[in-house]
Amino acid sequence: MPPLSFVQRVEAELAQVEALLAAQADGYHPDLQAALHHLLQAGGKRLRPVVALLMGRLLAAPLDRLIILAAALEMLHTATLVHDDLIDGALLRRGIPTLNAKWSPAATVLTGDFLFARAAKLATDTGSLHVMDLFTRTLAIIVDGEIRQLFEGGAYTTLEQYERRIYAKTASMFELATAAAASLAGYQPDDAAYETARQYGYHIGMAFQIVDDILDYVGDSRQVGKPVGNDLRNGLITLPALYYMETHPDDPDLQTVLQEGHLFDEERLRALVSRIRASDAIARASAMAREHIAQARRALESLPPRPERDALAELAQYVTERTF
Amino acid sequence: MPPLSFVQRVEAELAQVEALLAAQADGYHPDLQAALHHLLQAGGKRLRPVVALLMGRLLAAPLDRLIILAAALEMLHTATLVHDDLIDGALLRRGIPTLNAKWSPAATVLTGDFLFARAAKLATDTGSLHVMDLFTRTLAIIVDGEIRQLFEGGAYTTLEQYERRIYAKTASMFELATAAAASLAGYQPDDAAYETARQYGYHIGMAFQIVDDILDYVGDSRQVGKPVGNDLRNGLITLPALYYMETHPDDPDLQTVLQEGHLFDEERLRALVSRIRASDAIARASAMAREHIAQARRALESLPPRPERDALAELAQYVTERTF
Repeated sequence: MPPLSFVQRVEAELAQVEALLAAQADGYHPDLQAALHHLLQAGGKRLRPVVALLMGRLLAAPLDRLIILAAALEMLHTATLVHDDLIDGALLRRGIPTLNAKWSPAATVLTGDFLFARAAKLATDTGSLHVMDLFTRTLAIIVDGEIRQLFEGGAYTTLEQYERRIYAKTASMFELATAAAASLAGYQPDDAAYETARQYGYHIGMAFQIVDDILDYVGDSRQVGKPVGNDLRNGLITLPALYYMETHPDDPDLQTVLQEGHLFDEERLRALVSRIRASDAIARASAMAREHIAQARRALESLPPRPERDALAELAQYVTERTF
Repeated sequence: MPPLSFVQRVEAELAQVEALLAAQADGYHPDLQAALHHLLQAGGKRLRPVVALLMGRLLAAPLDRLIILAAALEMLHTATLVHDDLIDGALLRRGIPTLNAKWSPAATVLTGDFLFARAAKLATDTGSLHVMDLFTRTLAIIVDGEIRQLFEGGAYTTLEQYERRIYAKTASMFELATAAAASLAGYQPDDAAYETARQYGYHIGMAFQIVDDILDYVGDSRQVGKPVGNDLRNGLITLPALYYMETHPDDPDLQTVLQEGHLFDEERLRALVSRIRASDAIARASAMAREHIAQARRALESLPPRPERDALAELAQYVTERTF
């Protein structure tokens, strides 16, 4: 796959982010270094760093601090993935074995803790207390969301609960990326540019997770990196199932998911996924994602007309059009 | 037990620290609030907050920021205990069931993450980037130490490795407490008062852990909160065993610990503990702890002669004299 055009716009900066990330375990235990490199090489699109770099460049944030912020974001994201894998017991992510499948739970907990520590250190290195404040608040929101999902389950969900969950899980970190970039550029929370940047991050984050949730129904399992229908299997009601439920409240297999909190019968699961795909639920969920993207693009209109703004618009479009 | 005199000196400040700690889960999931209160009510001597409060008062740090620092330290300490319990599989700490025994591992991981997030938020609220920097560095040192212990085991240990391990595990956080307090008081790392404060924290932290390790051999299991000989049982060679090994390199039971990484035969374990207690190992380890305390007290001599200095001297004495 050729690099995406909006990534190319910050390719040089991204290389510096990669180097900074790779150095974060230097001087620590060799196994921590190995784990970090394993995790970084596992890929990922570095979407959070790219978003921060583009927004920071657009608003003229100092490059050195912006690169540190971008690295802090990817490190925080990686730390949450490591503990997520432990919590989900997920054995595959990004198509390669997760740390949890290779390492003991104890080592996985500690590796995640180490990555959190390094993420916090990088955030500190931006030299901005406001960025640190955003950063630590976001971490608490993410963890609170996971606790909520763990204790309340995902089986009974209103649209409001769904939106709260995907905000905590995904949108909060994109919002952090753009708000922190605006802050490094010297804007305060009550400046219009700060609020606009924050909104852009919020909306692409919400759209990104909705698309992720749609791909769990319509994606290619080899590309998505996990089997189709995985959310329903584990009792997690996301937007497509939520819309389907509105028009098919009595679907017996969906009732099983709601009552038992999972659906492990693969045949019934496949059939339910097919019925949801055949309904208008996917189209309605896609429309919701597109609406967030439209709002993200609208937010961009009041920002300076520079090449980075075009790249951010392209990035927003990519979020809804990606197929994995 | 009546309150210790050095605690009484900062009792009013400590009450503010408690209130701040108790409020840290407000607005988050009720189970996080319950877990936080459970953990805070489990007690603990609040030694890290007391050390920071006394050193900060001695050096005239602003009280509001000092209280936030003290809360950040206790929160960080609590977060590490939560993940430690998960890693150790320890079922009892402070004589009450740990979170891990009551909760699922997933909930325990997330609760620890939440406490880390809140600790980082409190550290940010001190308004000092230098404190944040100390804080995140210390967290990385602690986690690196745990990873090292997990992967290398504790069975083969030199004195240097032992000192490195207890620095990471305990002394680094006491050093953080006093260095951060000096920083809030306006001192820089190259000021004499800062360096002296840091040394005091380092030495009482080292002494504290050595005494803890001695108590694993000579303590009352009901007061220590864990069975005597627990370290050896799990293959962890601490200072008493290290000194005993010098004079009894061929002890067959100790050889078993070294070779197998544990000693689960309770009769052989009890006998080995008795032999170590009967040797000069405990006296030598106690002398090492006292030497650290002497250095801590010497560091105090160059600080202002105020009542808080006397309290810090008493606290240093208490560390070696405590029986649990």
